Amino acid sequence: MLHEVTSEHYFMGRLQHGEDLLEALNHICSQHHIELGKITAIGAVQKAVLGYYDQRQQVYQTIRLDWPLEIVQLTGNISMKDDKPFAHVHAILSDASGRTHGGHLFPGTIVFACETIIHVFRGPVFQRVLDTTTGLPLWNMP
Amino acid sequence: MLHEVTSEHYFMGRLQHGEDLLEALNHICSQHHIELGKITAIGAVQKAVLGYYDQRQQVYQTIRLDWPLEIVQLTGNISMKDDKPFAHVHAILSDASGRTHGGHLFPGTIVFACETIIHVFRGPVFQRVLDTTTGLPLWNMP
Amino acid sequence: MLHEVTSEHYFMGRLQHGEDLLEALNHICSQHHIELGKITAIGAVQKAVLGYYDQRQQVYQTIRLDWPLEIVQLTGNISMKDDKPFAHVHAILSDASGRTHGGHLFPGTIVFACETIIHVFRGPVFQRVLDTTTGLPLWNMP
Repeated sequence: MLHEVTSEHYFMGRLQHGEDLLEALNHICSQHHIELGKITAIGAVQKAVLGYYDQRQQVYQTIRLDWPLEIVQLTGNISMKDDKPFAHVHAILSDASGRTHGGHLFPGTIVFACETIIHVFRGPVFQRVLDTTTGLPLWNMP
Repeated sequence: MLHEVTSEHYFMGRLQHGEDLLEALNHICSQHHIELGKITAIGAVQKAVLGYYDQRQQVYQTIRLDWPLEIVQLTGNISMKDDKPFAHVHAILSDASGRTHGGHLFPGTIVFACETIIHVFRGPVFQRVLDTTTGLPLWNMP
Repeated sequence: MLHEVTSEHYFMGRLQHGEDLLEALNHICSQHHIELGKITAIGAVQKAVLGYYDQRQQVYQTIRLDWPLEIVQLTGNISMKDDKPFAHVHAILSDASGRTHGGHLFPGTIVFACETIIHVFRGPVFQRVLDTTTGLPLWNMP
C-alpha cells in the first residue's frame, strides 16, 4: 500500500504569533496548492487542543491544555480530502516540568512561535475517504 | 563520523490494519531492497511494546502497553544488519489523557492505522556491528 | 512568512559516545559550513538538560535529568545567529517506564549513542534576531 512519490520543493519559515496553528498550516497548503507533502515544526504554543481517537467508539476525544507549552515536535502529512488540500498533523507538547502531552492536532492551538519546514511531493492523488474498518478518513489507494 | 548520502526516492502510503508495525516496516525494506533510508509515520496502534536500553546492564527492558494509543510520532532509520535491511525505530505514543509513552519500537505493536513516508538514500554501506562500549549494534564506520 | 529552499545534500552518521549532544551538532554545522538545514536523530543519552520557555517572563527554565534516557526523537533546524551556523533543537527523551520528557535542548546533554541525519538546504539567509513580541531570536524575514 505504498506509492512512489518525488520531491518537488521545500518551504521553510515561521508562522505568525497568535495564529491558529492547524488553520495556518491548512491555509498554507491551499494557498500554495500543496496536494501532497510532509510537515515538520518546532516552537511553542500559547494553548492547545489535542485529540485521541477512541478506536472502539470511533470518535475523537479532545484534550484541552490552556497554558503555554513547547512544541517539542510536530509531524504531519498533506493529502486531499473532499477535493481540498488537508493537513493531518500530530504534535508533542511539553510543559515547565518537561512533561509531554501528545495527540492529533485540533483547531484552538495558538502559535507563540513556530518554525516549520514543508516538503512538497509530486505523486498519485492521495484522497481520503471513509474507511469502514477504522471509521477514519484514510487514503483509498490499492 | 558523518557520511554524505544522496536522496534516491520516496515511498508514501499506509500500513494495513492489524499488521505488526515493526515487522511491516522491515518487510517493506526487504521487499523494496531499501538498504539506507529514513522512516517517519503518524497514526494509531491497538497495543504496543516499547523498549528502554539499560545502559549499565546493556540490555533492553520492554514496556507493554496493552491498550489503544495514538502514534504521535515514529522516527526510524534503515541500514544493514547481518547483511539484511534493518529498521531502527523509535516511537512516541499517547493515550486518552494526552499522556505520552516513548521508546525503542519492538515487535508486538499492532497497527490500527498508520501513514508512513520512507525516504530512500544511496550512500556507503551502513553496516551494524556490535559496539563494545555501548553493547549496541552501531554503524562500524570511521 | 515561508520561503522556498532547495535540497543540497544529506549527512548521515553517528555522534561519539560521551560528546555533548548540542555542541556536537553545532560543531558539525560550523565544520561543514551548514547555514540552512534540518536535523533529526534517535539514540540515547547518559543525562540531559532540557528547556522550557516561560512566555510571560521571557526566559528559559532548565530541567535537569541526571539519568540515562532514550532519545525518542530529536528535531532541529539550522540557520544563522550572530553570523554563525546555529542549531535550534528540541528533543523527546524516555525513561525505563516509557515516560517521556521533552523540551528545548541545552548543553549538558551527553551522548550515549546517537544516529543522526542532517539535511542541508540552499536558500535565502535565515538570520535570527531578537523578536520583541516573544523575546526569542527568530528569523527576521518578511
